[in-house]
Amino acid sequence: MAKNQIQSFESGLVLNKQQKNVLIVYAHQEPKSFNGALLREAVETLEADGHSVEVSDLYSMHFEPRCQRTDVVGSVQNEGFFKYQMETKSAWENGTLSADIKVEIEKLKRADLVIFQFPLYWFSVPAILKGWFDRVYTMGFAYGMGNMYSTGPMKGKRGMLSFTTGGPGAAYYPDGLNGDMNVLLWPLQNGVLKFVGFDVLAPQIHYAPAHVSDDDRKQWLTDWAKRLHNIFEEPVLNFVNSSNFSNYKLTEEYLEGESSKQFGPTVGQNIGKPFSSTGMLKP
Amino acid sequence: MAKNQIQSFESGLVLNKQQKNVLIVYAHQEPKSFNGALLREAVETLEADGHSVEVSDLYSMHFEPRCQRTDVVGSVQNEGFFKYQMETKSAWENGTLSADIKVEIEKLKRADLVIFQFPLYWFSVPAILKGWFDRVYTMGFAYGMGNMYSTGPMKGKRGMLSFTTGGPGAAYYPDGLNGDMNVLLWPLQNGVLKFVGFDVLAPQIHYAPAHVSDDDRKQWLTDWAKRLHNIFEEPVLNFVNSSNFSNYKLTEEYLEGESSKQFGPTVGQNIGKPFSSTGMLKP
Repeated sequence: MAKNQIQSFESGLVLNKQQKNVLIVYAHQEPKSFNGALLREAVETLEADGHSVEVSDLYSMHFEPRCQRTDVVGSVQNEGFFKYQMETKSAWENGTLSADIKVEIEKLKRADLVIFQFPLYWFSVPAILKGWFDRVYTMGFAYGMGNMYSTGPMKGKRGMLSFTTGGPGAAYYPDGLNGDMNVLLWPLQNGVLKFVGFDVLAPQIHYAPAHVSDDDRKQWLTDWAKRLHNIFEEPVLNFVNSSNFSNYKLTEEYLEGESSKQFGPTVGQNIGKPFSSTGMLKP
Repeated sequence: MAKNQIQSFESGLVLNKQQKNVLIVYAHQEPKSFNGALLREAVETLEADGHSVEVSDLYSMHFEPRCQRTDVVGSVQNEGFFKYQMETKSAWENGTLSADIKVEIEKLKRADLVIFQFPLYWFSVPAILKGWFDRVYTMGFAYGMGNMYSTGPMKGKRGMLSFTTGGPGAAYYPDGLNGDMNVLLWPLQNGVLKFVGFDVLAPQIHYAPAHVSDDDRKQWLTDWAKRLHNIFEEPVLNFVNSSNFSNYKLTEEYLEGESSKQFGPTVGQNIGKPFSSTGMLKP
């Protein structure tokens, strides 16, 4: 019997408060892959805990990654000069976005937690998942003037990356062949998750699962499940609050407060200093 | 009359030496966009200088961004457990990659310079271009064990990013709302260009072209053309030579040589230090 169900005998109110909606956006071709195993582990664990889980299995859905004219149904504002961002913003307002985008937007609206499960391709997400961000994050819905970062529309939702790598963990240190994982994660965790308002959870990274034993992979799945049991109570990663910027720049006042500190505030807002070696990895 | 043609009257040998093959991989839906203007400026300038230019206009080509089973023609090694990287490596070796990938590989082989022209989407390339990297950079062809970074198969070719942003330049400083452009560019310039062996040229960045005057945009096109005239003589960005790594880590010897320096060697190999504020922007 699931945790929430037990609690529901004790207090009906607790049940309502703890039962959450989770969306997993999954980008792997092969169910037998370790990504597939991580997906199933997450679905089973979260459902057993009483949560409601939806999965967008992008390859199975044949999800379209390209931003095109067909993303707007019917006429556009300017057929002679197609501006994707502006036309899809209008389409969002008018309810004329293509059906596949609308479905994903509704899933995103419902979700309290979104997990992106993928293998790292070229130091980023696979194209099919990049296309999910490019198309589902419609202007107007996912961001707008004054609605980004701390005040982004996904405010209050939790978002996280869960991914596998081909190369070993050693390659992703600040003295590693592929470079500091904190740097690699900044564009995704700040630019894709935080930008639209998510509270960003530490990434779940599995380095080179193809090169470890079956026992190790089993242990990794057990650890993943353990983490998921408490995923709504975890502290989140640290970003600079948007209120500390004026005209796209950190305020003088904020910078003064940082002046005596050893590290820059974040990887991206490093203000010319070294940054924490775990800033994008741990709360 | 183009520069090379003039030179060819003086010396036939000079012509052969200077005439280069350029590939422009272009990812914008609308020819009337500033990206479209930058593309045309590049094609005209480079051809007038006597170079041979090919364009992969990804949206017009309806380029497929998804890594799928159909990227291998005929049978695969393991139909019951599809491993994209290994199967496409075999397909590369056996000549059974799908036709659209083969065509792009041939273009890449011919090129002395590759320019990627795109609007920045979510702090990275649009999905259609991400898919070009995911699919055309086949293991075996574009990289392999011991063939990456300084010894990558694109060694001797020049590669560069040319892109536009929505936000203003101020937002991309180390105290800016979107964070340090050096950090944003590391995964692309190191992880996508340098990884396969390219000599990486400084990026051509046009910030918020939608918010400047027609005169400014004309000037930007003129400046772009001016740069392109000398693109094969430009110094390239600095990366750590692969020979300084052992077991995925910088060697003790290399680190000793760096110990007294103010900055880390690169943005990614920052070894816990601040890095140059122009490391990913200027040679």
